[in-house]
Amino acid sequence: MAQTNLPLDADRLWADVMALAEITDPARPYTRRSFTALFLEGRAWLAQKFVEAGLTMRIDTAGNLIGRLEGKNPALGVIAIGSHSDTVPSGGRFDGIAGVAAGLEIVRALRDSGIRLEHSIEIIDFLAEEPSEYGLSCVGSRGMTGLLDGRMLALTEPGGETLRDALGRVGGDPDRLEEAKRDDIKAFLELHIEQGIVLESQSLDVGIVTSIVGIRRIEVVFQGEADHAGTTPLGLRHDALVAAAATVSSVRRVAEGLAAEGKDYFVATVGILTVEPSASNIVPGRSRLVIDARTTNPALTRRFVEAIDRESLAHAAAARVARATFETLSDGAPAACDPNLRTALREGARDLGLGESDLPSGAGHDAAFMSRICPSAMVFVPCRAGKSHAPEEWADREAIAAGAAVIYQAVKALDRSLAQNARSGAR
Amino acid sequence: MAQTNLPLDADRLWADVMALAEITDPARPYTRRSFTALFLEGRAWLAQKFVEAGLTMRIDTAGNLIGRLEGKNPALGVIAIGSHSDTVPSGGRFDGIAGVAAGLEIVRALRDSGIRLEHSIEIIDFLAEEPSEYGLSCVGSRGMTGLLDGRMLALTEPGGETLRDALGRVGGDPDRLEEAKRDDIKAFLELHIEQGIVLESQSLDVGIVTSIVGIRRIEVVFQGEADHAGTTPLGLRHDALVAAAATVSSVRRVAEGLAAEGKDYFVATVGILTVEPSASNIVPGRSRLVIDARTTNPALTRRFVEAIDRESLAHAAAARVARATFETLSDGAPAACDPNLRTALREGARDLGLGESDLPSGAGHDAAFMSRICPSAMVFVPCRAGKSHAPEEWADREAIAAGAAVIYQAVKALDRSLAQNARSGAR
Repeated sequence: MAQTNLPLDADRLWADVMALAEITDPARPYTRRSFTALFLEGRAWLAQKFVEAGLTMRIDTAGNLIGRLEGKNPALGVIAIGSHSDTVPSGGRFDGIAGVAAGLEIVRALRDSGIRLEHSIEIIDFLAEEPSEYGLSCVGSRGMTGLLDGRMLALTEPGGETLRDALGRVGGDPDRLEEAKRDDIKAFLELHIEQGIVLESQSLDVGIVTSIVGIRRIEVVFQGEADHAGTTPLGLRHDALVAAAATVSSVRRVAEGLAAEGKDYFVATVGILTVEPSASNIVPGRSRLVIDARTTNPALTRRFVEAIDRESLAHAAAARVARATFETLSDGAPAACDPNLRTALREGARDLGLGESDLPSGAGHDAAFMSRICPSAMVFVPCRAGKSHAPEEWADREAIAAGAAVIYQAVKALDRSLAQNARSGAR
Repeated sequence: MAQTNLPLDADRLWADVMALAEITDPARPYTRRSFTALFLEGRAWLAQKFVEAGLTMRIDTAGNLIGRLEGKNPALGVIAIGSHSDTVPSGGRFDGIAGVAAGLEIVRALRDSGIRLEHSIEIIDFLAEEPSEYGLSCVGSRGMTGLLDGRMLALTEPGGETLRDALGRVGGDPDRLEEAKRDDIKAFLELHIEQGIVLESQSLDVGIVTSIVGIRRIEVVFQGEADHAGTTPLGLRHDALVAAAATVSSVRRVAEGLAAEGKDYFVATVGILTVEPSASNIVPGRSRLVIDARTTNPALTRRFVEAIDRESLAHAAAARVARATFETLSDGAPAACDPNLRTALREGARDLGLGESDLPSGAGHDAAFMSRICPSAMVFVPCRAGKSHAPEEWADREAIAAGAAVIYQAVKALDRSLAQNARSGAR
């Protein structure tokens, strides 16, 4: 990392990240799942920090915790910075948390420097970005962008509570969700750990996210016959695993071909594959797999799905089994980051002498939803060995501070340029 | 099936099979697992039938239920007929049972015809042919052939009982196992349903088993890294499932090549494949599969294992994962059926005008163990659609009677020829 004199307090920022990490299920560090008592404890700690930093504090009707510093010219609207404070089970100390803590430190650094912005600034802790027991991710950012619907609110956790009730319990108001939807945010910026190894392997300080992938999930089921593995000659079998295994190979080969075209990000994974009845002496009668395909360019997903549809049918025919299911489970569109915001972030990094590079985001983020209602962009900071969603997840103090400083610079620049644009537009 | 006038009572034989089927867990027909109260109830019913047929009844120290009809010349030794009365969970009414009932009917038919053999004849219900909760199959036939060792007796079911204790509980004596080992059996014959579809598809009455396959089980584990399915580019992955899937394809392709050589029976199956952590958004970090390879010619298994060893290593290298395990879990040698006994069975079938064909056995049987201590052979009878180890398992009344009649004919012929050989040898 380049030697820099950062415009904020790296130690103060780091102390916040570490302090929030302590609010965890002691038996399973670092666990602070949304809607739990620990989550609310973490938020109470955050709210206290927001108030100490001079922010007014509220929870919107979608359950997002928001700290606000009023600008000199509130009519210009809001520049927002945020991420999430919930974790997956046995997750890490940085995923989400680093982005919320960075926003808090940026506000404190502005105050310490005596800078008062034209725009109001808001720090947002989005509710339930990680998949929770209710089976939905990005609850708060869906709510803020008008995409949290009645079907989603009716989702129920295993104990029987609906998401609607859970939302009310953590300070939201499911009957007044429309009030959470925003049209006053002029820019949204999110810092997040990369959750990959590109920055680390290239010794870069920050990644400027170009686009957040769309995710398509497809379930494929092959139905054959569960025959005796000793007495059924190969030519008389209907082996569902033979078709499934060939499909796994197809997924990898087709994905490699699309990724090798080089223009867009493309990955595809078979992360789930099950076999029934799963006995060493029985030919598999049924096999189910789930394909996860992600890209910054939906045209690639279409080509991928066409190829896998065709090849999996051929594999089924060759194994003399039925392809009983080929179904899209979910299909999210990619979200492009705003070019002006990306420029502001890139210039911020260069001002600070930091090494940066454009980078797609292979993971989903709150910023993907925010991009539906306002210009949005993201800064990635390197994390060790790309590990995330695990206790060993790690980002260095200097790495988080560098990412926060890039956003700090961008916020100052955007405050000027957006105010200028507003004046031009008003002319 | 050819019209024949069989030398035994097909209805009486059928009634026994159906009566034994009624002794089942009513919630899971047809379940009569070894060592259970239902199993002992079935054996009590069988013992009663043995006595009614004029047999003396005993349980040997290996837990086998044996009915014996003394011959005119007991010094000639024993011709034995048998199979097993235990079932798998939710199994069928014929697997094993048909062979025991056939032996019983053959004795009754001999008696009804006023025939008294030179040799003593024994009907054996072998203990625990199916895998039980103790994790071992063919307990009784291992015991009778001196292959039930201390390590096996120490096996424990989930409730904590050792096989040693269970054996004592059902009438065996684990401390006097050597007494179960036999050297007086001159021929062993077993009737069994085919558990395959060759006889049915060729409209044959009986199969004369040439050889019982040896079974080699191999566990393969690939160890990669469980990375984020969105943020890890394909070129940086260590996907254990990609290697495992390619290995499944190798197993099928190599097995097809060996089977296509046409000289020997060869099948191989991947019946178990698991993935960890098994989440749609995580690259599989670990995958385990179990290969089951069966052949009548061990040289083919050696070539198969060499090829899969080489190819699975190559698949691991291509996927940049470790092949952490490549281990033989079990390795049973094939057992050739005795040529003289096969001839006797074939001539018996021809005498009766039945359609017969040589056939390998892809499944293991008590006869495979018995072949270690005496000339042994098997008759297969067709079963519907090859289904076995399932409630819908079915064999026709006439099919079972035809198979039993073939053994009846062979027993009479062997009684003469073996007595003749003994006299010649004694000269």
